[in-house]
Amino acid sequence: MDKVTAVPALADGRRPRADRARQVADLLRGEITHGRFGGGRLPLEAALAREFGTSRNTVRDALDLLRDEGLIERCPGVGTTVSGERYPHGLHRLLGLAEVLHEHGEVTNEVRAMSLIEPPPAVSGRLGLAAGESVVYVERLRRLNGLPLSLDLTYLVRDVGEPLFDADLEHNDIFVLLERIAGQQLGLAELSLEAVNADAHTAAVLGAPRGAALLMIERLAHLADGRPVDLEFIRFRGDRLTMRGHLRRSLNDSMEKTWP
Amino acid sequence: MDKVTAVPALADGRRPRADRARQVADLLRGEITHGRFGGGRLPLEAALAREFGTSRNTVRDALDLLRDEGLIERCPGVGTTVSGERYPHGLHRLLGLAEVLHEHGEVTNEVRAMSLIEPPPAVSGRLGLAAGESVVYVERLRRLNGLPLSLDLTYLVRDVGEPLFDADLEHNDIFVLLERIAGQQLGLAELSLEAVNADAHTAAVLGAPRGAALLMIERLAHLADGRPVDLEFIRFRGDRLTMRGHLRRSLNDSMEKTWP
Repeated sequence: MDKVTAVPALADGRRPRADRARQVADLLRGEITHGRFGGGRLPLEAALAREFGTSRNTVRDALDLLRDEGLIERCPGVGTTVSGERYPHGLHRLLGLAEVLHEHGEVTNEVRAMSLIEPPPAVSGRLGLAAGESVVYVERLRRLNGLPLSLDLTYLVRDVGEPLFDADLEHNDIFVLLERIAGQQLGLAELSLEAVNADAHTAAVLGAPRGAALLMIERLAHLADGRPVDLEFIRFRGDRLTMRGHLRRSLNDSMEKTWP
Repeated sequence: MDKVTAVPALADGRRPRADRARQVADLLRGEITHGRFGGGRLPLEAALAREFGTSRNTVRDALDLLRDEGLIERCPGVGTTVSGERYPHGLHRLLGLAEVLHEHGEVTNEVRAMSLIEPPPAVSGRLGLAAGESVVYVERLRRLNGLPLSLDLTYLVRDVGEPLFDADLEHNDIFVLLERIAGQQLGLAELSLEAVNADAHTAAVLGAPRGAALLMIERLAHLADGRPVDLEFIRFRGDRLTMRGHLRRSLNDSMEKTWP
Protein backbone atom coordinates (compact mmCIF):
# COMPACT_ATOMS: atom_id res chain seq x y z
CA MET A 1 0.00 0.00 0.00
CA ASP A 2 1.24 3.44 -0.90
CA LYS A 3 2.34 5.47 2.07
CA VAL A 4 5.01 7.61 0.50
CA THR A 5 2.97 10.71 -0.25
CA ALA A 6 0.05 11.88 1.82
CA VAL A 7 -3.01 12.48 -0.35
CA PRO A 8 -5.81 14.93 0.36
CA ALA A 9 -8.01 13.27 2.91
CA LEU A 10 -10.57 11.29 0.99
CA ALA A 11 -9.45 11.77 -2.58
CA ASP A 12 -8.32 8.20 -3.08
CA GLY A 13 -10.15 7.38 -6.31
CA ARG A 14 -9.34 3.68 -6.10
CA ARG A 15 -11.86 3.26 -3.29
CA PRO A 16 -15.59 2.93 -3.99
CA ARG A 17 -17.43 6.23 -3.63
CA ALA A 18 -19.76 4.64 -1.05
CA ASP A 19 -16.74 4.04 1.21
CA ARG A 20 -15.58 7.63 0.86
CA ALA A 21 -19.11 8.92 1.46
CA ARG A 22 -19.37 6.92 4.69
CA GLN A 23 -16.07 8.39 5.81
CA VAL A 24 -17.24 11.96 5.18
CA ALA A 25 -20.61 11.20 6.80
CA ASP A 26 -18.95 9.98 10.01
CA LEU A 27 -16.77 13.07 10.28
CA LEU A 28 -19.70 15.38 9.58
CA ARG A 29 -21.88 13.52 12.07
CA GLY A 30 -19.21 14.13 14.69
CA GLU A 31 -19.05 17.83 13.78
CA ILE A 32 -22.83 18.12 14.00
CA THR A 33 -23.23 16.28 17.30
CA HIS A 34 -20.32 18.23 18.80
CA GLY A 35 -22.21 21.42 17.91
CA ARG A 36 -19.98 22.95 15.23
CA PHE A 37 -23.00 24.18 13.28
CA GLY A 38 -25.28 24.78 16.26
CA GLY A 39 -28.81 24.19 15.05
CA GLY A 40 -27.90 25.97 11.86
CA ARG A 41 -26.78 25.57 8.33
CA LEU A 42 -23.99 23.44 6.87
CA PRO A 43 -21.50 24.89 4.35
CA LEU A 44 -22.29 24.50 0.66
CA GLU A 45 -21.41 21.21 -1.04
CA ALA A 46 -18.49 22.79 -2.90
CA ALA A 47 -16.99 24.11 0.34
CA LEU A 48 -17.44 20.74 2.05
CA ALA A 49 -15.80 19.02 -0.94
CA ARG A 50 -12.74 21.29 -0.52
CA GLU A 51 -12.69 20.81 3.24
CA PHE A 52 -12.78 17.01 2.99
CA GLY A 53 -10.56 16.80 -0.08
CA THR A 54 -13.13 14.88 -2.05
CA SER A 55 -15.63 15.29 -4.90
CA ARG A 56 -19.00 17.01 -4.68
CA ASN A 57 -20.66 13.72 -5.59
CA THR A 58 -19.10 12.08 -2.54
CA VAL A 59 -20.22 14.97 -0.34
CA ARG A 60 -23.73 14.68 -1.75
CA ASP A 61 -23.81 10.94 -0.98
CA ALA A 62 -22.53 11.64 2.54
CA LEU A 63 -25.28 14.21 3.11
CA ASP A 64 -27.84 11.71 1.86
CA LEU A 65 -26.67 9.24 4.50
CA LEU A 66 -27.03 11.83 7.27
CA ARG A 67 -30.43 12.86 5.95
CA ASP A 68 -31.54 9.23 6.08
CA GLU A 69 -30.42 9.17 9.73
CA GLY A 70 -32.71 12.15 10.41
CA LEU A 71 -29.80 14.39 11.36
CA ILE A 72 -30.05 16.98 8.59
CA GLU A 73 -32.55 18.29 6.07
CA ARG A 74 -31.71 19.18 2.49
CA CYS A 75 -33.79 21.70 0.64
CA PRO A 76 -33.00 22.73 -2.95
CA GLY A 77 -32.15 26.42 -3.08
CA VAL A 78 -31.94 26.63 0.71
CA GLY A 79 -29.11 24.24 1.46
CA THR A 80 -28.48 21.79 4.25
CA THR A 81 -29.65 22.44 7.78
CA VAL A 82 -29.28 20.54 11.04
CA SER A 83 -32.69 19.15 11.87
CA GLY A 84 -32.60 16.48 14.50
CA GLU A 85 -30.94 17.33 17.77
CA ARG A 86 -29.43 14.35 19.54
CA TYR A 87 -29.47 14.78 23.27
CA PRO A 88 -26.39 13.64 25.18
CA HIS A 89 -26.98 11.05 27.91
CA GLY A 90 -24.06 10.45 30.23
CA LEU A 91 -22.67 6.95 30.54
CA HIS A 92 -20.49 7.99 33.47
CA ARG A 93 -23.13 8.14 36.16
CA LEU A 94 -26.53 6.69 37.01
CA LEU A 95 -29.06 9.44 36.37
CA GLY A 96 -32.75 9.73 35.67
CA LEU A 97 -33.83 11.16 32.33
CA ALA A 98 -35.09 14.50 33.67
CA GLU A 99 -31.86 14.91 35.63
CA VAL A 100 -29.85 14.24 32.47
CA LEU A 101 -31.85 16.46 30.15
CA HIS A 102 -32.83 19.40 32.35
CA GLU A 103 -30.71 21.74 30.23
CA HIS A 104 -32.53 20.63 27.09
CA GLY A 105 -36.12 21.03 28.18
CA GLU A 106 -38.96 19.44 30.05
CA VAL A 107 -39.33 15.69 30.39
CA THR A 108 -42.93 14.49 30.78
CA ASN A 109 -44.01 10.90 31.34
CA GLU A 110 -47.23 9.35 30.09
CA VAL A 111 -48.06 6.42 32.35
CA ARG A 112 -49.42 3.77 29.96
CA ALA A 113 -49.84 1.08 32.60
CA MET A 114 -49.31 0.72 36.33
CA SER A 115 -50.31 -2.19 38.48
CA LEU A 116 -49.29 -4.61 41.18
CA ILE A 117 -48.42 -7.91 39.50
CA GLU A 118 -47.20 -11.40 40.32
CA PRO A 119 -43.95 -11.34 38.40
CA PRO A 120 -42.60 -14.19 36.30
CA PRO A 121 -39.34 -15.81 37.46
CA ALA A 122 -37.38 -13.65 34.99
CA VAL A 123 -38.28 -10.64 37.15
CA SER A 124 -38.25 -12.26 40.62
CA GLY A 125 -34.82 -13.71 39.94
CA ARG A 126 -33.22 -10.41 38.97
CA LEU A 127 -34.83 -8.56 41.88
CA GLY A 128 -33.89 -11.28 44.38
CA LEU A 129 -37.51 -11.96 45.35
CA ALA A 130 -39.12 -15.19 46.53
CA ALA A 131 -41.80 -16.75 44.33
CA GLY A 132 -45.16 -15.16 45.08
CA GLU A 133 -43.80 -11.74 46.08
CA SER A 134 -45.56 -9.03 44.09
CA VAL A 135 -43.89 -6.18 42.23
CA VAL A 136 -45.14 -2.89 40.82
CA TYR A 137 -45.08 -2.66 37.03
CA VAL A 138 -44.96 0.78 35.43
CA GLU A 139 -44.91 1.47 31.72
CA ARG A 140 -44.13 5.02 30.60
CA LEU A 141 -43.78 6.84 27.33
CA ARG A 142 -41.27 9.60 28.01
CA ARG A 143 -41.20 12.83 26.05
CA LEU A 144 -38.77 15.73 25.89
CA ASN A 145 -40.48 18.99 25.03
CA GLY A 146 -43.43 16.97 23.81
CA LEU A 147 -41.48 14.66 21.46
CA PRO A 148 -41.34 10.93 22.22
CA LEU A 149 -37.89 9.92 23.42
CA SER A 150 -38.23 6.56 25.12
CA LEU A 151 -40.57 3.78 26.15
CA ASP A 152 -39.71 2.42 29.60
CA LEU A 153 -40.94 -0.84 31.16
CA THR A 154 -40.15 -0.85 34.88
CA TYR A 155 -40.46 -3.50 37.61
CA LEU A 156 -40.12 -2.28 41.19
CA VAL A 157 -39.96 -4.22 44.45
CA ARG A 158 -43.22 -3.72 46.29
CA ASP A 159 -42.15 -1.67 49.34
CA VAL A 160 -40.51 1.10 47.30
CA GLY A 161 -42.83 0.74 44.30
CA GLU A 162 -46.26 0.84 45.95
CA PRO A 163 -45.96 4.45 47.24
CA LEU A 164 -45.54 5.51 43.59
CA PHE A 165 -49.29 4.97 43.06
CA ASP A 166 -49.75 8.27 44.93
CA ALA A 167 -46.76 10.11 43.37
CA ASP A 168 -46.57 12.50 40.43
CA LEU A 169 -44.97 10.17 37.92
CA GLU A 170 -45.81 12.49 35.06
CA HIS A 171 -43.26 15.10 36.14
CA ASN A 172 -40.69 13.14 38.13
CA ASP A 173 -37.98 10.58 37.46
CA ILE A 174 -38.67 7.29 39.23
CA PHE A 175 -35.07 7.36 40.54
CA VAL A 176 -35.66 10.57 42.47
CA LEU A 177 -38.97 9.32 43.89
CA LEU A 178 -37.44 5.96 44.84
CA GLU A 179 -34.67 7.61 46.82
CA ARG A 180 -37.19 9.72 48.71
CA ILE A 181 -39.29 6.64 49.52
CA ALA A 182 -36.35 4.42 50.45
CA GLY A 183 -34.61 7.13 52.49
CA GLN A 184 -31.31 6.34 50.82
CA GLN A 185 -29.58 6.93 47.51
CA LEU A 186 -29.36 4.47 44.71
CA GLY A 187 -25.96 2.81 44.40
CA LEU A 188 -24.87 0.66 41.51
CA ALA A 189 -26.73 -0.30 38.34
CA GLU A 190 -25.92 -3.11 35.93
CA LEU A 191 -26.47 -2.05 32.39
CA SER A 192 -26.66 -3.74 29.03
CA LEU A 193 -27.09 -1.86 25.82
CA GLU A 194 -28.01 -3.04 22.32
CA ALA A 195 -29.14 -1.62 19.01
CA VAL A 196 -32.45 -3.08 17.79
CA ASN A 197 -34.92 -2.26 15.03
CA ALA A 198 -38.30 -0.95 16.17
CA ASP A 199 -41.16 -3.38 15.59
CA ALA A 200 -44.30 -1.88 14.04
CA HIS A 201 -46.16 -1.32 17.30
CA THR A 202 -43.21 0.17 19.20
CA ALA A 203 -42.47 2.41 16.24
CA ALA A 204 -46.04 3.71 16.34
CA VAL A 205 -45.83 4.40 20.07
CA LEU A 206 -42.52 6.27 19.67
CA GLY A 207 -43.67 8.10 16.54
CA ALA A 208 -40.74 6.65 14.57
CA PRO A 209 -40.66 4.78 11.26
CA ARG A 210 -41.05 1.01 11.45
CA GLY A 211 -37.61 -0.54 11.67
CA ALA A 212 -36.03 2.63 13.11
CA ALA A 213 -32.84 1.91 15.07
CA LEU A 214 -33.41 2.03 18.82
CA LEU A 215 -31.00 1.93 21.74
CA MET A 216 -32.33 -0.88 23.93
CA ILE A 217 -31.16 -0.72 27.52
CA GLU A 218 -31.70 -3.24 30.29
CA ARG A 219 -30.82 -1.78 33.66
CA LEU A 220 -30.97 -3.25 37.15
CA ALA A 221 -30.55 -0.56 39.81
CA HIS A 222 -29.64 -1.27 43.43
CA LEU A 223 -30.08 0.89 46.49
CA ALA A 224 -26.88 2.08 48.16
CA ASP A 225 -27.25 -0.81 50.63
CA GLY A 226 -26.96 -3.26 47.73
CA ARG A 227 -30.57 -4.42 47.41
CA PRO A 228 -31.84 -4.61 43.79
CA VAL A 229 -35.09 -2.63 43.55
CA ASP A 230 -35.63 -1.44 39.97
CA LEU A 231 -35.44 -3.52 36.78
CA GLU A 232 -35.97 -1.52 33.59
CA PHE A 233 -36.22 -2.15 29.87
CA ILE A 234 -35.78 1.12 28.00
CA ARG A 235 -36.10 1.80 24.27
CA PHE A 236 -34.58 5.12 23.21
CA ARG A 237 -35.16 6.55 19.76
CA GLY A 238 -31.74 6.30 18.15
CA ASP A 239 -32.20 9.54 16.26
CA ARG A 240 -32.76 11.55 19.45
CA LEU A 241 -30.06 10.32 21.78
CA THR A 242 -26.28 9.97 22.04
CA MET A 243 -24.78 8.12 24.99
CA ARG A 244 -21.52 9.77 26.09
CA GLY A 245 -18.88 8.52 28.42
CA HIS A 246 -15.25 7.81 29.17
CA LEU A 247 -13.34 4.59 29.37
CA ARG A 248 -9.96 3.96 30.94
CA ARG A 249 -7.41 1.46 29.76
CA SER A 250 -6.43 0.53 33.32
CA LEU A 251 -9.08 -0.22 35.87
CA ASN A 252 -8.95 2.07 38.83
CA ASP A 253 -8.19 -0.22 41.77
CA SER A 254 -10.81 1.22 44.05
CA MET A 255 -13.43 0.87 41.31
CA GLU A 256 -12.52 -2.70 40.57
CA LYS A 257 -12.95 -3.57 44.21
CA THR A 258 -16.33 -1.93 44.62
CA TRP A 259 -17.83 -3.45 41.50
CA PRO A 260 -19.48 -6.82 42.07
CA MET B 1 -55.59 2.30 38.78
CA ASP B 2 -56.26 -1.01 40.49
CA LYS B 3 -53.53 -2.00 42.90
CA VAL B 4 -55.57 -3.95 45.41
CA THR B 5 -54.96 -7.45 44.09
CA ALA B 6 -51.83 -8.57 42.31
CA VAL B 7 -52.68 -10.18 38.99
CA PRO B 8 -50.65 -12.86 37.22
CA ALA B 9 -47.81 -11.04 35.56
CA LEU B 10 -49.03 -10.06 32.14
CA ALA B 11 -52.60 -11.22 32.16
CA ASP B 12 -54.06 -7.74 32.21
CA GLY B 13 -56.51 -8.06 29.32
CA ARG B 14 -57.24 -4.34 29.26
CA ARG B 15 -53.86 -3.67 27.65
CA PRO B 16 -53.24 -4.20 23.93
CA ARG B 17 -51.70 -7.57 23.15
CA ALA B 18 -48.77 -5.84 21.43
CA ASP B 19 -47.85 -4.16 24.73
CA ARG B 20 -47.97 -7.47 26.57
CA ALA B 21 -45.96 -9.17 23.81
CA ARG B 22 -43.23 -6.52 24.07
CA GLN B 23 -43.11 -7.06 27.81
CA VAL B 24 -42.67 -10.82 27.42
CA ALA B 25 -40.12 -10.30 24.63
CA ASP B 26 -37.95 -8.06 26.83
CA LEU B 27 -37.93 -10.55 29.69
CA LEU B 28 -37.17 -13.45 27.35
CA ARG B 29 -34.41 -11.44 25.64
CA GLY B 30 -32.83 -10.91 29.04
CA GLU B 31 -33.10 -14.64 29.82
CA ILE B 32 -31.53 -15.52 26.48
CA THR B 33 -28.65 -13.03 26.66
CA HIS B 34 -27.95 -14.02 30.27
CA GLY B 35 -27.57 -17.60 29.06
CA ARG B 36 -30.57 -19.32 30.68
CA PHE B 37 -31.09 -21.51 27.62
CA GLY B 38 -27.43 -21.77 26.58
CA GLY B 39 -27.41 -22.10 22.81
CA GLY B 40 -30.37 -24.41 23.08
CA ARG B 41 -34.09 -24.70 22.97
CA LEU B 42 -36.77 -22.54 24.57
CA PRO B 43 -39.71 -24.10 26.44
CA LEU B 44 -42.92 -24.77 24.50
CA GLU B 45 -45.34 -21.90 23.99
CA ALA B 46 -47.80 -23.36 26.49
CA ALA B 47 -45.12 -23.56 29.17
CA LEU B 48 -43.97 -20.01 28.45
CA ALA B 49 -47.59 -18.82 28.63
CA ARG B 50 -47.90 -20.34 32.11
CA GLU B 51 -44.53 -18.95 33.20
CA PHE B 52 -45.38 -15.41 32.11
CA GLY B 53 -49.03 -15.57 33.17
CA THR B 54 -50.29 -14.68 29.72
CA SER B 55 -51.95 -16.20 26.67
CA ARG B 56 -50.28 -18.38 24.06
CA ASN B 57 -51.08 -15.75 21.44
CA THR B 58 -49.11 -13.15 23.40
CA VAL B 59 -46.18 -15.57 23.76
CA ARG B 60 -46.30 -16.26 20.03
CA ASP B 61 -46.19 -12.52 19.25
CA ALA B 62 -43.28 -12.09 21.67
CA LEU B 63 -41.36 -14.89 19.97
CA ASP B 64 -42.05 -13.25 16.59
CA LEU B 65 -40.43 -10.04 17.88
CA LEU B 66 -37.32 -11.90 19.02
CA ARG B 67 -37.16 -13.81 15.74
CA ASP B 68 -37.26 -10.50 13.86
CA GLU B 69 -34.30 -9.35 15.99
CA GLY B 70 -32.38 -12.44 14.83
CA LEU B 71 -32.14 -13.82 18.35
CA ILE B 72 -34.17 -17.01 17.90
CA GLU B 73 -35.39 -19.31 15.17
CA ARG B 74 -38.82 -20.88 15.07
CA CYS B 75 -39.39 -24.10 13.25
CA PRO B 76 -42.79 -25.83 13.13
CA GLY B 77 -42.61 -29.24 14.78
CA VAL B 78 -39.14 -28.49 16.17
CA GLY B 79 -39.85 -25.50 18.40
CA THR B 80 -37.91 -22.39 19.22
CA THR B 81 -34.12 -22.36 19.36
CA VAL B 82 -31.57 -19.68 20.24
CA SER B 83 -29.85 -18.75 17.00
CA GLY B 84 -27.91 -15.53 17.24
CA GLU B 85 -25.30 -15.24 19.96
CA ARG B 86 -24.72 -11.68 21.15
CA TYR B 87 -21.20 -11.18 22.35
CA PRO B 88 -20.71 -9.10 25.49
CA HIS B 89 -18.45 -6.06 25.14
CA GLY B 90 -17.46 -4.42 28.40
CA LEU B 91 -18.27 -0.76 28.92
CA HIS B 92 -16.16 -0.65 32.07
CA ARG B 93 -12.73 -0.58 30.47
CA LEU B 94 -11.02 0.42 27.24
CA LEU B 95 -10.26 -2.81 25.41
CA GLY B 96 -9.55 -3.91 21.87
CA LEU B 97 -12.00 -6.28 20.21
CA ALA B 98 -9.74 -9.34 20.28
CA GLU B 99 -9.00 -8.70 23.95
CA VAL B 100 -12.73 -8.49 24.66
CA LEU B 101 -13.78 -11.52 22.68
CA HIS B 102 -10.88 -13.94 23.16
CA GLU B 103 -13.18 -16.34 25.04
CA HIS B 104 -15.62 -16.38 22.16
CA GLY B 105 -13.30 -17.10 19.26
CA GLU B 106 -10.85 -15.62 16.83
CA VAL B 107 -11.06 -12.02 15.66
CA THR B 108 -9.65 -11.40 12.19
CA ASN B 109 -9.38 -8.05 10.47
CA GLU B 110 -9.67 -7.44 6.75
CA VAL B 111 -7.82 -4.23 5.95
CA ARG B 112 -10.00 -2.52 3.32
CA ALA B 113 -7.88 0.63 3.06
CA MET B 114 -4.70 1.97 4.61
CA SER B 115 -2.87 5.11 3.63
CA LEU B 116 -1.17 8.25 4.79
CA ILE B 117 -3.60 11.14 4.27
CA GLU B 118 -3.89 14.88 4.77
CA PRO B 119 -6.78 14.91 7.21
CA PRO B 120 -9.69 17.35 7.11
CA PRO B 121 -10.04 19.75 10.07
CA ALA B 122 -12.62 17.42 11.64
CA VAL B 123 -9.79 14.94 12.21
CA SER B 124 -6.89 17.34 12.90
CA GLY B 125 -8.96 19.15 15.49
CA ARG B 126 -9.86 16.03 17.48
CA LEU B 127 -6.27 14.71 17.33
CA GLY B 128 -4.78 18.08 18.28
CA LEU B 129 -2.74 18.35 15.08
CA ALA B 130 -1.69 21.45 13.16
CA ALA B 131 -3.06 21.91 9.65
CA GLY B 132 -0.88 20.00 7.18
CA GLU B 133 0.16 17.23 9.58
CA SER B 134 -0.56 13.85 8.02
CA VAL B 135 -2.36 10.96 9.67
CA VAL B 136 -2.65 7.27 8.91
CA TYR B 137 -6.10 6.11 7.87
CA VAL B 138 -7.03 2.45 8.35
CA GLU B 139 -10.35 0.89 7.44
CA ARG B 140 -11.04 -2.63 8.67
CA LEU B 141 -13.84 -5.13 8.47
CA ARG B 142 -13.62 -7.14 11.66
CA ARG B 143 -14.90 -10.70 11.94
CA LEU B 144 -15.39 -13.06 14.83
CA ASN B 145 -15.03 -16.71 13.81
CA GLY B 146 -15.44 -15.58 10.22
CA LEU B 147 -18.71 -13.64 10.73
CA PRO B 148 -18.70 -9.86 10.16
CA LEU B 149 -18.99 -8.00 13.47
CA SER B 150 -17.88 -4.43 12.83
CA LEU B 151 -16.60 -1.93 10.30
CA ASP B 152 -13.95 0.38 11.81
CA LEU B 153 -12.65 3.65 10.35
CA THR B 154 -9.51 4.71 12.20
CA TYR B 155 -7.35 7.86 12.10
CA LEU B 156 -3.95 7.63 13.82
CA VAL B 157 -1.36 10.31 14.47
CA ARG B 158 1.57 9.72 12.15
CA ASP B 159 4.35 8.72 14.56
CA VAL B 160 2.38 5.86 16.12
CA GLY B 161 0.37 5.06 12.99
CA GLU B 162 3.10 4.75 10.37
CA PRO B 163 4.81 1.68 11.93
CA LEU B 164 1.49 -0.16 11.47
CA PHE B 165 2.22 -0.45 7.73
CA ASP B 166 4.68 -3.21 8.68
CA ALA B 167 2.51 -4.81 11.40
CA ASP B 168 0.16 -7.78 11.27
CA LEU B 169 -3.12 -5.90 11.40
CA GLU B 170 -5.05 -8.95 10.34
CA HIS B 171 -4.50 -10.75 13.64
CA ASN B 172 -3.90 -7.93 16.13
CA ASP B 173 -5.91 -5.19 17.79
CA ILE B 174 -4.61 -1.73 16.89
CA PHE B 175 -4.66 -0.86 20.61
CA VAL B 176 -2.12 -3.53 21.45
CA LEU B 177 0.14 -2.57 18.53
CA LEU B 178 -0.10 1.15 19.41
CA GLU B 179 1.02 0.53 22.97
CA ARG B 180 4.01 -1.46 21.75
CA ILE B 181 4.95 1.32 19.30
CA ALA B 182 4.40 4.18 21.75
CA GLY B 183 6.15 2.40 24.64
CA GLN B 184 3.31 3.30 26.97
CA GLN B 185 -0.25 2.22 27.70
CA LEU B 186 -3.33 3.93 26.44
CA GLY B 187 -5.08 6.04 29.05
CA LEU B 188 -8.52 7.56 28.66
CA ALA B 189 -10.93 7.37 25.75
CA GLU B 190 -13.92 9.60 25.07
CA LEU B 191 -16.82 7.61 23.74
CA SER B 192 -20.13 8.38 22.13
CA LEU B 193 -22.61 5.72 21.22
CA GLU B 194 -25.70 5.83 19.02
CA ALA B 195 -28.11 3.45 17.30
CA VAL B 196 -28.32 3.97 13.53
CA ASN B 197 -29.85 2.07 10.63
CA ALA B 198 -27.38 0.51 8.18
CA ASP B 199 -27.34 2.18 4.77
CA ALA B 200 -27.41 -0.17 1.79
CA HIS B 201 -23.65 -0.23 1.22
CA THR B 202 -22.68 -0.66 4.86
CA ALA B 203 -25.29 -3.40 5.20
CA ALA B 204 -23.72 -5.23 2.27
CA VAL B 205 -20.22 -4.93 3.77
CA LEU B 206 -21.44 -6.23 7.15
CA GLY B 207 -23.60 -8.96 5.60
CA ALA B 208 -26.67 -7.55 7.34
CA PRO B 209 -30.08 -6.56 5.93
CA ARG B 210 -30.42 -3.00 4.71
CA GLY B 211 -31.70 -0.87 7.56
CA ALA B 212 -30.38 -3.26 10.23
CA ALA B 213 -29.82 -1.53 13.58
CA LEU B 214 -26.14 -0.82 14.22
CA LEU B 215 -24.32 0.42 17.30
CA MET B 216 -22.33 3.40 16.05
CA ILE B 217 -19.41 4.34 18.26
CA GLU B 218 -17.12 7.32 18.00
CA ARG B 219 -14.06 6.89 20.19
CA LEU B 220 -11.06 9.15 20.75
CA ALA B 221 -8.30 7.32 22.61
CA HIS B 222 -5.41 9.04 24.38
CA LEU B 223 -2.05 7.66 25.43
CA ALA B 224 -1.43 7.48 29.17
CA ASP B 225 0.46 10.79 28.87
CA GLY B 226 -2.74 12.47 27.66
CA ARG B 227 -1.97 12.85 23.95
CA PRO B 228 -4.89 11.93 21.64
CA VAL B 229 -3.64 9.42 19.09
CA ASP B 230 -6.52 7.31 17.78
CA LEU B 231 -9.88 8.54 16.46
CA GLU B 232 -12.28 5.75 15.49
CA PHE B 233 -15.72 5.39 13.99
CA ILE B 234 -17.04 1.90 14.62
CA ARG B 235 -20.23 0.28 13.35
CA PHE B 236 -21.16 -2.87 15.25
CA ARG B 237 -23.88 -5.19 14.02
CA GLY B 238 -26.61 -4.75 16.61
CA ASP B 239 -27.61 -8.40 16.42
CA ARG B 240 -24.13 -9.63 17.35
CA LEU B 241 -23.14 -7.40 20.27
CA THR B 242 -24.29 -6.35 23.73
CA MET B 243 -22.42 -3.60 25.56
CA ARG B 244 -22.27 -4.35 29.30
CA GLY B 245 -21.28 -2.11 32.12
CA HIS B 246 -21.98 -0.62 35.52
CA LEU B 247 -23.04 2.83 36.56
CA ARG B 248 -22.90 4.40 39.99
CA ARG B 249 -25.31 6.93 41.35
CA SER B 250 -22.54 8.87 43.11
CA LEU B 251 -19.40 9.77 41.25
CA ASN B 252 -16.30 8.37 42.81
CA ASP B 253 -14.29 11.43 43.86
CA SER B 254 -11.03 10.19 42.45
CA MET B 255 -12.68 9.40 39.12
CA GLU B 256 -14.29 12.80 38.87
CA LYS B 257 -10.94 14.45 39.36
CA THR B 258 -9.07 12.45 36.77
CA TRP B 259 -11.68 12.86 34.06
CA PRO B 260 -11.20 15.87 31.84
